[in-house]
Amino acid sequence: MDFAYDARTLELRERLLAFMDAHVYPAEPVLEAQLADPDRPAWAVPPIVAELQAEARKQGLWNLFLTGRHGVPGEPGAGLTNLQYAPLAEITGRSPQLAPPALNCAAPDTGNMELLAQFGSAEQKRQWLAPLLDAGIRSAFAMTEPEVASSDATNIRTRIERDGDDYVITGRKWYITGAMNPQCRIFIVMGKTDPGADPHRQQSMVLVPRDTPGVTVRRGMKVFGYDDSDHGGHAEVHFDGARVPAANLIGEEGAGFAIAQARLGPGRIHHCMRAIGMAERAVELMCRRTLDRVAFGRPLAEQGVVQDWIAESRVRIEQLRLLVLKTAWLMDTVGNRGAHTEIQAIKIATPSTVEWILDKAVQAHGAAGVGQDTPLAQLWAGNRTLRLADGPDEVHKRSLARRELKRHR
Amino acid sequence: MDFAYDARTLELRERLLAFMDAHVYPAEPVLEAQLADPDRPAWAVPPIVAELQAEARKQGLWNLFLTGRHGVPGEPGAGLTNLQYAPLAEITGRSPQLAPPALNCAAPDTGNMELLAQFGSAEQKRQWLAPLLDAGIRSAFAMTEPEVASSDATNIRTRIERDGDDYVITGRKWYITGAMNPQCRIFIVMGKTDPGADPHRQQSMVLVPRDTPGVTVRRGMKVFGYDDSDHGGHAEVHFDGARVPAANLIGEEGAGFAIAQARLGPGRIHHCMRAIGMAERAVELMCRRTLDRVAFGRPLAEQGVVQDWIAESRVRIEQLRLLVLKTAWLMDTVGNRGAHTEIQAIKIATPSTVEWILDKAVQAHGAAGVGQDTPLAQLWAGNRTLRLADGPDEVHKRSLARRELKRHR
Amino acid sequence: MDFAYDARTLELRERLLAFMDAHVYPAEPVLEAQLADPDRPAWAVPPIVAELQAEARKQGLWNLFLTGRHGVPGEPGAGLTNLQYAPLAEITGRSPQLAPPALNCAAPDTGNMELLAQFGSAEQKRQWLAPLLDAGIRSAFAMTEPEVASSDATNIRTRIERDGDDYVITGRKWYITGAMNPQCRIFIVMGKTDPGADPHRQQSMVLVPRDTPGVTVRRGMKVFGYDDSDHGGHAEVHFDGARVPAANLIGEEGAGFAIAQARLGPGRIHHCMRAIGMAERAVELMCRRTLDRVAFGRPLAEQGVVQDWIAESRVRIEQLRLLVLKTAWLMDTVGNRGAHTEIQAIKIATPSTVEWILDKAVQAHGAAGVGQDTPLAQLWAGNRTLRLADGPDEVHKRSLARRELKRHR
Amino acid sequence: MDFAYDARTLELRERLLAFMDAHVYPAEPVLEAQLADPDRPAWAVPPIVAELQAEARKQGLWNLFLTGRHGVPGEPGAGLTNLQYAPLAEITGRSPQLAPPALNCAAPDTGNMELLAQFGSAEQKRQWLAPLLDAGIRSAFAMTEPEVASSDATNIRTRIERDGDDYVITGRKWYITGAMNPQCRIFIVMGKTDPGADPHRQQSMVLVPRDTPGVTVRRGMKVFGYDDSDHGGHAEVHFDGARVPAANLIGEEGAGFAIAQARLGPGRIHHCMRAIGMAERAVELMCRRTLDRVAFGRPLAEQGVVQDWIAESRVRIEQLRLLVLKTAWLMDTVGNRGAHTEIQAIKIATPSTVEWILDKAVQAHGAAGVGQDTPLAQLWAGNRTLRLADGPDEVHKRSLARRELKRHR
Repeated sequence: MDFAYDARTLELRERLLAFMDAHVYPAEPVLEAQLADPDRPAWAVPPIVAELQAEARKQGLWNLFLTGRHGVPGEPGAGLTNLQYAPLAEITGRSPQLAPPALNCAAPDTGNMELLAQFGSAEQKRQWLAPLLDAGIRSAFAMTEPEVASSDATNIRTRIERDGDDYVITGRKWYITGAMNPQCRIFIVMGKTDPGADPHRQQSMVLVPRDTPGVTVRRGMKVFGYDDSDHGGHAEVHFDGARVPAANLIGEEGAGFAIAQARLGPGRIHHCMRAIGMAERAVELMCRRTLDRVAFGRPLAEQGVVQDWIAESRVRIEQLRLLVLKTAWLMDTVGNRGAHTEIQAIKIATPSTVEWILDKAVQAHGAAGVGQDTPLAQLWAGNRTLRLADGPDEVHKRSLARRELKRHR
Repeated sequence: MDFAYDARTLELRERLLAFMDAHVYPAEPVLEAQLADPDRPAWAVPPIVAELQAEARKQGLWNLFLTGRHGVPGEPGAGLTNLQYAPLAEITGRSPQLAPPALNCAAPDTGNMELLAQFGSAEQKRQWLAPLLDAGIRSAFAMTEPEVASSDATNIRTRIERDGDDYVITGRKWYITGAMNPQCRIFIVMGKTDPGADPHRQQSMVLVPRDTPGVTVRRGMKVFGYDDSDHGGHAEVHFDGARVPAANLIGEEGAGFAIAQARLGPGRIHHCMRAIGMAERAVELMCRRTLDRVAFGRPLAEQGVVQDWIAESRVRIEQLRLLVLKTAWLMDTVGNRGAHTEIQAIKIATPSTVEWILDKAVQAHGAAGVGQDTPLAQLWAGNRTLRLADGPDEVHKRSLARRELKRHR
Repeated sequence: MDFAYDARTLELRERLLAFMDAHVYPAEPVLEAQLADPDRPAWAVPPIVAELQAEARKQGLWNLFLTGRHGVPGEPGAGLTNLQYAPLAEITGRSPQLAPPALNCAAPDTGNMELLAQFGSAEQKRQWLAPLLDAGIRSAFAMTEPEVASSDATNIRTRIERDGDDYVITGRKWYITGAMNPQCRIFIVMGKTDPGADPHRQQSMVLVPRDTPGVTVRRGMKVFGYDDSDHGGHAEVHFDGARVPAANLIGEEGAGFAIAQARLGPGRIHHCMRAIGMAERAVELMCRRTLDRVAFGRPLAEQGVVQDWIAESRVRIEQLRLLVLKTAWLMDTVGNRGAHTEIQAIKIATPSTVEWILDKAVQAHGAAGVGQDTPLAQLWAGNRTLRLADGPDEVHKRSLARRELKRHR
Repeated sequence: MDFAYDARTLELRERLLAFMDAHVYPAEPVLEAQLADPDRPAWAVPPIVAELQAEARKQGLWNLFLTGRHGVPGEPGAGLTNLQYAPLAEITGRSPQLAPPALNCAAPDTGNMELLAQFGSAEQKRQWLAPLLDAGIRSAFAMTEPEVASSDATNIRTRIERDGDDYVITGRKWYITGAMNPQCRIFIVMGKTDPGADPHRQQSMVLVPRDTPGVTVRRGMKVFGYDDSDHGGHAEVHFDGARVPAANLIGEEGAGFAIAQARLGPGRIHHCMRAIGMAERAVELMCRRTLDRVAFGRPLAEQGVVQDWIAESRVRIEQLRLLVLKTAWLMDTVGNRGAHTEIQAIKIATPSTVEWILDKAVQAHGAAGVGQDTPLAQLWAGNRTLRLADGPDEVHKRSLARRELKRHR
């Protein structure tokens, strides 16, 4: 149980922190301006992102997320362990609209690249993984459906039917992150190939290019008013008999559920560490603001209630970070399966803890906290979705409790 | 302490409920469509609102908020008491974008009309109150400033300086609700006429027409991601030596703080009852959704955690409503001053209680809860601002605690 | 919905408040001393209680709880409505060890007297109700069992079997409040007469005198560290073939569940109002203490966190009291059945709200808060049991939620 | 940041777990019986404790708490680091009345022994440390005073006045843990030697034997009804001109505050880890109980709300333990000063987290949870005092927040 940051981590941390100061934070107002430009093409990623990507690539801060499990020579990615990458992910979370895409480390592309690296065929890797690693295209992961409780994967209604040498896909998906971005060229679609099979062998995953006939990107879904158009938003996508070659299947038929589970682990670490970075930024903003503003004769920072918020924030972050680091370390040492309880625990603990902190930072800012002049409100909205994404917290608690109970039967 | 709904209230309630069913709920998707229309003029109020206003006026559901304190013959308004209006306000909260403006009962115009009715000169009433009561124009209330903690009114920096027969206004305001709407013709501006006076006699209020030279409506501030453009948003407004006749002063010099306090009472009731209406709608949506969706073999409504949310929501709403009704009754019977503790108590209790309920309703809806296909996320954002508006909860708690402590000294 | 205190309530309130000041509060240290006396007979009620009873009886503050439902001439009790008695119960809650027994208004005797008044035969009333109304004896209500989840009444295992002209009772009960007191002469025992009947027709209630052969009062159960020996504690009682005449049945066979439900309503009001009285006392002690103690250069009462506690306490009490008063009013006007939701709501809301307040008062007192020199710790423990008594909160929430859901089916 | 349990820790853990199973848990009912024995001498430690001590000593499970900082040859104690001892302290917390004293690892003796080992003179060590290490006598630490907010050390009123070759002590202390035990022979008393000095140089510590004239052990203070007589309770002690030789001073005059601070670090780890052990036991009991009891047709363990409690408990414990282990590791590697923030953080986080878990375990047990047949209620009461001991949480939060704010000035 050794979570210390090793030499490579420390070195990358230094370089990443310098990159944040020199390039990312100064780019935040540029992003705002580019997003507000009335002449901006709808859903296009603002040009500042490509500029940051060029700089990051030059500095070797690129594809850091792709972990050492695939770290054999010639394999893509930086070859970091989960524990090495985790503190870097935290730093990117301080500016989550810019830093992750700048480093080609943004969801959902990261999870999709991992999935293709692990389960893709050589041809699938050549066609889709290579340009994703190069940030030449973007991708989406189409699982959630509007008409059912998608937290129960057996509810999925989208059909993937074999027809000769093709698969034919029919169904509706929504909250498909990134899919409004015209550069998003490929969708990984989860659906049922065999509704009569065992519940966890009914689903398969298939690669569906955006321009496949029968695919319609209908509209951008919102998150508390935000369209998140800087990174391609969250689309509703309809598949009306979309036909792709059978070779577009990922892995084998019936493997969809297992691949989805495998995809979750590292992504969970990334999400949680970025959320911690968001919380750290919120604490920093809350401290600065309350030191600066005076009410009733004293800086807000001297009010007992504000001090209570700051202290609680610090105490909660410290506990949370240790749990996420331990989970990363477990994944590196005993694998996802051995880290199952912890992977669920960080899903349960992180969003609600970070939400509490962001809420206090918003409150400490008064009206400024809910608006567009601080990042707080948007950070709050982004983090709020984590209580729902990959299944609501309640589902994970139920599953974790059952495992705990089993120990005492 | 009799909060029963009397005959007039019951009769109006019936008519209002029928109006909601027949006109307001069906108008919700129309509003969505009109707001999404790419050809819509920026910040214009969608035409459905005027249609609803015409219908409401025809049905006599108009200006119900203007209470009986001014209920002498010939006075404007429906002449309802606070206790009579409160249950009607609750109903309008179920559809807060449409029902309040439909009835000409939307903030901030309601508070501004009350203020003019109570403190305005005959000429001010003629020029501004009359068209407001007729919904011919809209108004804004400019108090909050971006550069100071506005919860402490002595912090206000905007200057209102006498110069001959004029006042000259210089300062910056923001989160001026409604001011982006081009129909918003008049601003009530709070500023300092005498920075050397007693802290609570430094401020005055002055009427500043929108088209006064030196007035610039700079931009729409957001609330989480919402611009609230359906009702004129929340503007940043600059006053650079804006000059108005001395007759535009409301009341007397130095009365600004006292007038602001007087404005708060009824508005507090309206806000709180509307928030309760929002909570009721959230409970209804939560029940319907969880009865409808199945996960892991059972409707969500049969999950213990969901039942806990529903029960807690009901128990909290019942307590809260009684407190707000009691406050309304106190205002009617002993006046705002006698209801001081309760007016603060409902400000403290309502937003956090309603936020808790909205959060659970969002969670019960999964991804749908955070998006634009249910009203929940937007209701959440609107309610969240109530923890800040009119001073953050923390300021009110501090003040209420001091009064409680005084009883035991 | 008129909760105003009427003339009779106000008059009784004044007299009761005077009685508290003149007799009850001064008796608190006397009670402490009598309980600490090493020569005190085990489980005997300290003599101060009888002294207070004599004084209360003299002043006509006696049996106030017995409500007007039985208020026909010649019927026992003060004939108050639930709404009239509620504010008096609140006052007694400020000194819950002394004031309720002083007025012959202490649980479980109150519920037992109501039960006998409503369901007892003439002979049962003569033999047991009369001396209870006179405080000549005490009684207990034996429902909870150690071996099953008693929140589900169908789990009850105690058997009440007809054998000729007798009933024979066999089973174990615990947490039988008052039963350690040697003056407690009669137990009302709930058990199954017909395990094969409909779940809610299996139970019956029977009167079992303490000295019946086969009845063993085994030991006093504790509540946190308290034995509550001032009022007879909480006994474990075994019934090993205890035989009583068939005439000891209350009502009819199979009516046990229905009688238990009927018993709950008024008792719920009493418990909740007394708990509010406890909360008010806690706020008063918290204010006094924090005004008195200085830390880091300021009275604790000037610390923001302490002010937050005080304000929240006040806001929560005000809401809670209104809900309990409304429930009392509903019971008076539409009956227990019509007040079903509210009777559950106050069971859910009261203990947790009061617990929060007591916890803050304890914290504000430092070490003194957990010890025997303030009433706070014992108030806390007593209130904590209310989250369990009459079924844990969770059971009531589940039931309330189901009723709410039914409205939206 | 390596918290892994090393070989020595693992080996001791195994032995301690075996000792718990073979000796401690079976001794729990014995302790209950001995405490309930009416012939037991007041405040005497029940004989089972000495039996366990004999066995533990035989097994080498003795004085494990005394850490390696003093681990030079010939020094007392097991020479474990804080990180090595922490997991052992957790295990003892599962049975906190028996396991810590069995291993001679119970507060307040542990802190007192550390203090004497670190700051005592050779003679003081000979006279007091040696018999304490041998469990021949017990000790107490007298700091808290009934008349002031002791969280602010400058409030202390007890005077320690030099008079010739003696110190004369005058003052009142309370909640002096262990002092009711007649075997408690020595008190370490904190008081002011120089009220005119710098605030943090006013206090000194002096050794006062129990039998010193002028020392009166007045009474046992309670903790939620418990007298904690198994380990000497919590005494109120008066010092009325108690006179001791000047050689009884610990360290130098004015060093009292610094010594008290030094005493806190390891004790904080012990308290927190024991509390985690209590939480683990509570989770275990909660699981077993809810698997066992059936209500409404299902085991309680299958109720969603119960599963929520279990999952939250697990998630919170995991985070908390990591933070305490990190703190222990920091103390070992960078010293108490470098671990200052973390030492405060665990004081803030632990009691409230463990309280939440214990509360849920109590609730899951129904009436059994508040009584003497499970350890839960007493664990709850003991843990509740930790929110107050060594200063209330609020003081620590304030201090931690100030340090956080300083980073952003």
